[in-house]
Amino acid sequence: MTTEAGEEVRATPDTGDEERLARVALSRVVEPGDERVGRLVAESSAAEVWSALLAKDLQVTGVDGYQLRLPEADPHRDLERAAAAGIRVLVPGDDGWPDRLDGFGVKAPLLLWVRGEPGLDALTDRSVAVVGARAATDYGEYVAAELAADLADRGWTVVSGGAYGIDARAHRGALAARGSTVAVLACGVDVAYPRGHETLFAEIARRGLIVGELPPGCTPTRFRFLERNRMIAGLTAGVVVVEAAVRSGAANTARWAERLGRPVMAVPGPVTSSMSAGCHVLLRSHTAECVTDAAEVIEVVGRIGADLAPVRRGDIDPREALPPEPRTVLEAVPARGSCTPDRLARLTGVDPRRLLGILGELESDGWVDRDEGGWCLGELGRARRRPPAGDTSGGGA
Amino acid sequence: MTTEAGEEVRATPDTGDEERLARVALSRVVEPGDERVGRLVAESSAAEVWSALLAKDLQVTGVDGYQLRLPEADPHRDLERAAAAGIRVLVPGDDGWPDRLDGFGVKAPLLLWVRGEPGLDALTDRSVAVVGARAATDYGEYVAAELAADLADRGWTVVSGGAYGIDARAHRGALAARGSTVAVLACGVDVAYPRGHETLFAEIARRGLIVGELPPGCTPTRFRFLERNRMIAGLTAGVVVVEAAVRSGAANTARWAERLGRPVMAVPGPVTSSMSAGCHVLLRSHTAECVTDAAEVIEVVGRIGADLAPVRRGDIDPREALPPEPRTVLEAVPARGSCTPDRLARLTGVDPRRLLGILGELESDGWVDRDEGGWCLGELGRARRRPPAGDTSGGGA
Repeated sequence: MTTEAGEEVRATPDTGDEERLARVALSRVVEPGDERVGRLVAESSAAEVWSALLAKDLQVTGVDGYQLRLPEADPHRDLERAAAAGIRVLVPGDDGWPDRLDGFGVKAPLLLWVRGEPGLDALTDRSVAVVGARAATDYGEYVAAELAADLADRGWTVVSGGAYGIDARAHRGALAARGSTVAVLACGVDVAYPRGHETLFAEIARRGLIVGELPPGCTPTRFRFLERNRMIAGLTAGVVVVEAAVRSGAANTARWAERLGRPVMAVPGPVTSSMSAGCHVLLRSHTAECVTDAAEVIEVVGRIGADLAPVRRGDIDPREALPPEPRTVLEAVPARGSCTPDRLARLTGVDPRRLLGILGELESDGWVDRDEGGWCLGELGRARRRPPAGDTSGGGA
Repeated sequence: MTTEAGEEVRATPDTGDEERLARVALSRVVEPGDERVGRLVAESSAAEVWSALLAKDLQVTGVDGYQLRLPEADPHRDLERAAAAGIRVLVPGDDGWPDRLDGFGVKAPLLLWVRGEPGLDALTDRSVAVVGARAATDYGEYVAAELAADLADRGWTVVSGGAYGIDARAHRGALAARGSTVAVLACGVDVAYPRGHETLFAEIARRGLIVGELPPGCTPTRFRFLERNRMIAGLTAGVVVVEAAVRSGAANTARWAERLGRPVMAVPGPVTSSMSAGCHVLLRSHTAECVTDAAEVIEVVGRIGADLAPVRRGDIDPREALPPEPRTVLEAVPARGSCTPDRLARLTGVDPRRLLGILGELESDGWVDRDEGGWCLGELGRARRRPPAGDTSGGGA
């Protein structure tokens, strides 16, 4: 189907895709990240869950509130309105669905509403979240803008939450460098929240993407902000917290990244600033790596990000079977070039006396190899690091 | 012997201590930290090395320059002048010699010249080095003064190098809080270098101590500053770098602390400040823990510092025989109270799945015990943590 403007609309009811339509319907009724519904969908299908909900036959306690929302759900109408507004729907398995989002289990998004032209997977493949406080200081805003511009300059997409303060500076910094940026919203992707960002969002949608789990017209809630943070962490190769109070949305995003095994980074600041206190807590607890510029961010996401290159479904990663220490060592071996044992010991914290034995075992299985510079990836290690076919990214920078 | 003022002078020639006199003589001739001389002294005695030097019979290449200085050496005169100026000498084994200085091997100090009343071991037992750039920013100077005052308030001695900038603010902060401070100089302890600190040094000597390896009257050199940094690290339970350029004296002090197994801490600052860049390098390389106030500093030196409680010579620490992981776990168990397995896993980085097994082994040997709060030190662990008899410190805070 094409709209009057001749624009291709991938997600339309007449694809005959009952599952897709059910996900659109569910997204109008079910809160993002609902684990009960997520479990049912994983066990059967969105279509079956939607039918059960319509038949008031959903075998889950505590979803009574969703029944009340059923009258609002009209997936055909939602998709038509969205298409007219240049908004499309992506569901898992679609061309353009980021494999990186497959790590959520029962908290997997049912779908994503997407406003803007570029492919979401292409845009987020080399992406970093730059997040932080709304009540940012001049220092934080300056650093966020510079960092985002430098990341964009180096070909990385800046993902943030579209809020005032750090988020806005990050988006604007990337746009100013003629780079890509993605805003992940806790409301409909057609809703300007905060209202003062209507122009910013229009610009982001023109040159990047606005995405979210909520259907058009929905407004944000505190709960939706927290689930939105999960999507920011999920879409990116790592999260940089620029400024944050100790308890903050940015700290929440960092926790999501940690849970997903993505690197968390924090920008230090004056110890006299409460807006840097959250960053220092992340550094002190060793949750976050200390980063002071874009090159350092890329060093972190380029290295570890390559290790997290999406594992296709049904394809069990043999690295998962390695014991923790050998796996840690393997993950510290750079994607390109080689690394001395000393550096590996420092990177991994593994006792240098044990390290050589571990490397020997990894070598005999083909994970790593020796060269003149120390240890590099072996045949098996390289195969596992190679991005999936058709992936536009070169992996670690 | 007592001086005319009736002051006791511990280190005088008429103690008949030939070894002490030889060390005084050598300190006038030999540069601090000279490993060649240090090795000879360790193998024989200072007296023998001094005799060989006098007889031009020293079997070491490259010490010809020291022969040229022989005419300057007059240990009797040096000691008399020093005593008249309220300066005493401490040699290894003396009452008041800090056991903490015994980790240097061939770079052990021959002696220390000490100006001021308090006992050096008592004053430095609970001490932290607060060091940093001479060309400090207002931010760094503010943080150094606050940190030092808070450390002093909590009963910790602030040790620094008496330089302009961070060092001076640290000394002054401790003095302002009516606390103790020790300046470690790269020149004679009677020499005001920099000259602008003559009044500061007089105040430090009145209420704390000025110490150094160089005999009275000696002036500093670049080389002596580096060796002085080794003494700052050696005298303290840990080193805090407040502000530092990437290559700096403070970074050198931090490396010494690292080599001695003492914790290194760094205060973060704006990433836009080159004076914080050295701190961020220490944080990024995981050389330093991130600290933002005195309580966090004490948490670090209180915990690990207790583990480094001086091991008396000839007394082999059975912890040395533990494999690295159990030893790491044991060292993370707090000196007082207890700790959950979760926290131990976080502190040590040991895989939680292995941690309980390791704790079980440590328990069966008496190193650790269980209580309602988790894991605490067992009988053997407590015995090993207890400070030596006569030590005035309570150990970890």
